[in-house]
Amino acid sequence: MNLTFTFDGIASTIYIEEAFDDIHAILGGDADGGCARLLVCDENTAGIAAKIAPGIVGNAAGSTAGRTQGVRVIARSCEICVLPAGESAKNWANVEKILKAARDAGLGRDGVFIGVGGGVITDMTAFAASVYMRGAKLALAPTTLLGMVDAAVGGKTGFDLFGIKNFVGTFYPSPLVIMPLESLSTLSGREWKSGFAELLKTAVLDSDDDFLDRIGRLKGAFSSPDFPANILQDSFLRGELLACIARSVEIKGRIVEEDPEETGTRRRLLNLGHTFGHALEASAGLGRLTHGEAVAWGIARACDLGQSLGVTGRDRAEKITGLLFSFGYETWAPHPCMKDAGRFMDALFNDKKKTAGKLAFIVPERRGCGVVFIEKNKRTETERILHIINGEAA
Amino acid sequence: MNLTFTFDGIASTIYIEEAFDDIHAILGGDADGGCARLLVCDENTAGIAAKIAPGIVGNAAGSTAGRTQGVRVIARSCEICVLPAGESAKNWANVEKILKAARDAGLGRDGVFIGVGGGVITDMTAFAASVYMRGAKLALAPTTLLGMVDAAVGGKTGFDLFGIKNFVGTFYPSPLVIMPLESLSTLSGREWKSGFAELLKTAVLDSDDDFLDRIGRLKGAFSSPDFPANILQDSFLRGELLACIARSVEIKGRIVEEDPEETGTRRRLLNLGHTFGHALEASAGLGRLTHGEAVAWGIARACDLGQSLGVTGRDRAEKITGLLFSFGYETWAPHPCMKDAGRFMDALFNDKKKTAGKLAFIVPERRGCGVVFIEKNKRTETERILHIINGEAA
Repeated sequence: MNLTFTFDGIASTIYIEEAFDDIHAILGGDADGGCARLLVCDENTAGIAAKIAPGIVGNAAGSTAGRTQGVRVIARSCEICVLPAGESAKNWANVEKILKAARDAGLGRDGVFIGVGGGVITDMTAFAASVYMRGAKLALAPTTLLGMVDAAVGGKTGFDLFGIKNFVGTFYPSPLVIMPLESLSTLSGREWKSGFAELLKTAVLDSDDDFLDRIGRLKGAFSSPDFPANILQDSFLRGELLACIARSVEIKGRIVEEDPEETGTRRRLLNLGHTFGHALEASAGLGRLTHGEAVAWGIARACDLGQSLGVTGRDRAEKITGLLFSFGYETWAPHPCMKDAGRFMDALFNDKKKTAGKLAFIVPERRGCGVVFIEKNKRTETERILHIINGEAA
Repeated sequence: MNLTFTFDGIASTIYIEEAFDDIHAILGGDADGGCARLLVCDENTAGIAAKIAPGIVGNAAGSTAGRTQGVRVIARSCEICVLPAGESAKNWANVEKILKAARDAGLGRDGVFIGVGGGVITDMTAFAASVYMRGAKLALAPTTLLGMVDAAVGGKTGFDLFGIKNFVGTFYPSPLVIMPLESLSTLSGREWKSGFAELLKTAVLDSDDDFLDRIGRLKGAFSSPDFPANILQDSFLRGELLACIARSVEIKGRIVEEDPEETGTRRRLLNLGHTFGHALEASAGLGRLTHGEAVAWGIARACDLGQSLGVTGRDRAEKITGLLFSFGYETWAPHPCMKDAGRFMDALFNDKKKTAGKLAFIVPERRGCGVVFIEKNKRTETERILHIINGEAA
C-alpha cells in the first residue's frame, strides 16, 4: 500500500511493502535515468541493503576492528557505504564518510542517496543528501519500527553534536520512502518496544480513541513467550501491525503537511513525551535508554503535567498511562535511570525547541493534545516540573 | 537605499548604506525581541563588526599564534565569534566553531546569526544558521565588494570539502542583508578587482549594454595612482559605485527569484565565467588566484566557446574581452597559473553543476547570455574545450 503527502511543496510517497521483492522493483528500475546512486547502511542493515539493491558485487573495501565498513560496488551504478551502528555513530565524521563515498561514486547533484537502516542511518543519509552540492536526490528505506513510524517520515534530518541529539540538521523531505515490513523480523524485543512508543504517541494525538484501542489489542502479543517473532508470523497480528503503521504514518504526515518546518505549533504536537523524554535520555547518558522507552516515560509525565495544569482529565491520563504500563514501559517518576534532577532540568531547558526562554510541552486534552508553555524563569512553573519528574504531588 | 526580493517564499531586504551609523540603527534595535545573537567575523572584519554592533565589551577569550580568535561579549545579548581569515578557513572545523559559539551564547532556534565579512564568512555563517537546530535566524553584512555583489545575495551557503569549493551547502536566503559601503575602504586593489569581475559578469547578463558601459566608465579609476582610495573618496566615483552595486544586486536578485534553487536553467546564467573559473582556481591551487581573477578569465573563455559554437558574435566577444583587459584582468589562454591541462579538465568535469554527464556553460548571446551543454564523453566536444583553454584555434 502507499500514502502520498506534500511536504513544503515536495511530493513524498510512502510505500509499506511486505516483501523485499516489491521494494527491489520500486528501487531497481531506471526511474532515475541511470543516475549514480549511493546506498548507505550500517553493519546491521547491510544484509537488508543487499536484498533491496540488485546485484551487490565485491566486498567491503575497509574493515576497522572487525567492523564491516567501507565502500562496496553494487552493479555499475550503485555503490554502498557501510557505517558503524548505533546512536554514537550519528556524528559529523560519519556524515563526512557518506559525502566522501558519494563523491568517490561520482554522484552529481542528480545522484541518489538511498538510506537503508534505522533512524540514525536515515537521518544522517538525508542530512548528507540535503547538503551535498546544496541538495541531491534521496530515497529512504527505514528498517526499524521506530524509523518507519517516525524518523523517516516528515523531512527532519540531522546528527548529534556537543552531546545534543540532532543539534545539526535540515528539513529535507524524502520524495520516496519504502518500508520493508520483512526487515522488522531482525528486531529485538526492546527495539519493538521502542517503536511502539511512537505508535502510542501518535494514537494519543488522534482525534478519537479508535487507533489507541487498536494498539491496545496488541498488548497480549508483547507478553507472549513467542514475542517478538509472533508479530510477523501470526497473520492477524501482522495485518494489525501494518494497519497501525499506516495509520501512524498518515497522522504524522497530515500534521507535517500543515506545518512542515515547525514554524507554527501544529508540528510540535508530535513532540508529545519528547521534551521530558529527551531530557531523560540526556540525564541518563545518551544510548542507555531506547528513544521509545524515554518517550513512553515522557508521555506519562505529560499526563501528570496536564493534570497538574487542569488540562488533562483524570480518566484520560489513567487510560494512557495504563496502556503504557501494560506494554511494559516504565511510567513511574522518578525514573530509575534519572541520575540527578538538576542535570535533568538543565537538559530540559537546553532543549532546542525553546523559544524566547519558554519551553513548549504537549499535554493530552479530552481529544487529541494541546500545547502549553512553561517559562524557565518562573519559579512556580519550574517547581511544578521538578515535582513531576520527582514523582511528588504538585 | 534598499531592495526587496522574495527567494523561495522568504522575503529578503537588502540595504546599501554609506555610513556605519545607519547600519547600527538597523541592527541595533530590539527588532528580534531581545533574542540572543551571535556575531561572526574574521580577524580582518572584527573592527567593522565592532562598529556595526553596539557596545562590544571584553577581549578575545582565546588567541592562537598571535591571531585574534575566540568569543567576546557584546553588550548583554550579543556575542562574537572571530575566525581566521581566508578561503582555507572555509571548512567544517570553523563551521563547528560557529555552532559551538552559538550554543555557548545560548541561542535557541529564534537566535540570530550575524555574519560580518567577505564571502567566506557570510557563506559559513549562513550555512551554520541553516543547520543550527534545523534553522535559526540570519542577517548578513558583507564587507567586500565581492560579498556585496555576489556571495551575500541569493541564499547560497556552504563550505569547502575534499578540496572542492562549496561542496557542502544549503539554500538559505538571509531575510536581512546590510552592505556597509564604508567597509570597502579597507580593501586592497586586488580585492577591488576581484569584486569588479562579478559586476562585469552581471552586466554581461543584462538585456542591454547600459550597465556594461557604466562600469566601463570606471576603468580610468583603476589605472589612477590614487586607486583604490579614489573610488570612495571621489564623490562621482562613489555614486557610480553605489549605482553599480545596486544594479548588480537587482539583476542577480531577479534571476534568483525566478529559480531560487537552481533547479531550472535560469539561475545557471549567474555561472557565466564560473565553470572555467572554478576549474582554473582548482588547477592553479585554491587561494592562488582571487575568485574574480579566475571568473574574468572564465568570461573570456566563455566568449571563445560561444564564438566557436557560433552563438557569440565577434563584436560582442571583443567588446566584453576588451573591457576585461582594460580593467587589468588576464584574458589570454592558456592562463599563466594553469599548471596542467589534464588537471584542469578533471576539475572541470568534476564541477558540481554537472547533470547526467553533461556540463552547462554560459555563453554571451547578442543580448544577455544563454546556456550550452557539453558532454563529457563526446570527444569532439571535450577537444573543443581543450583547444580553448590552451588558446589554440578550434
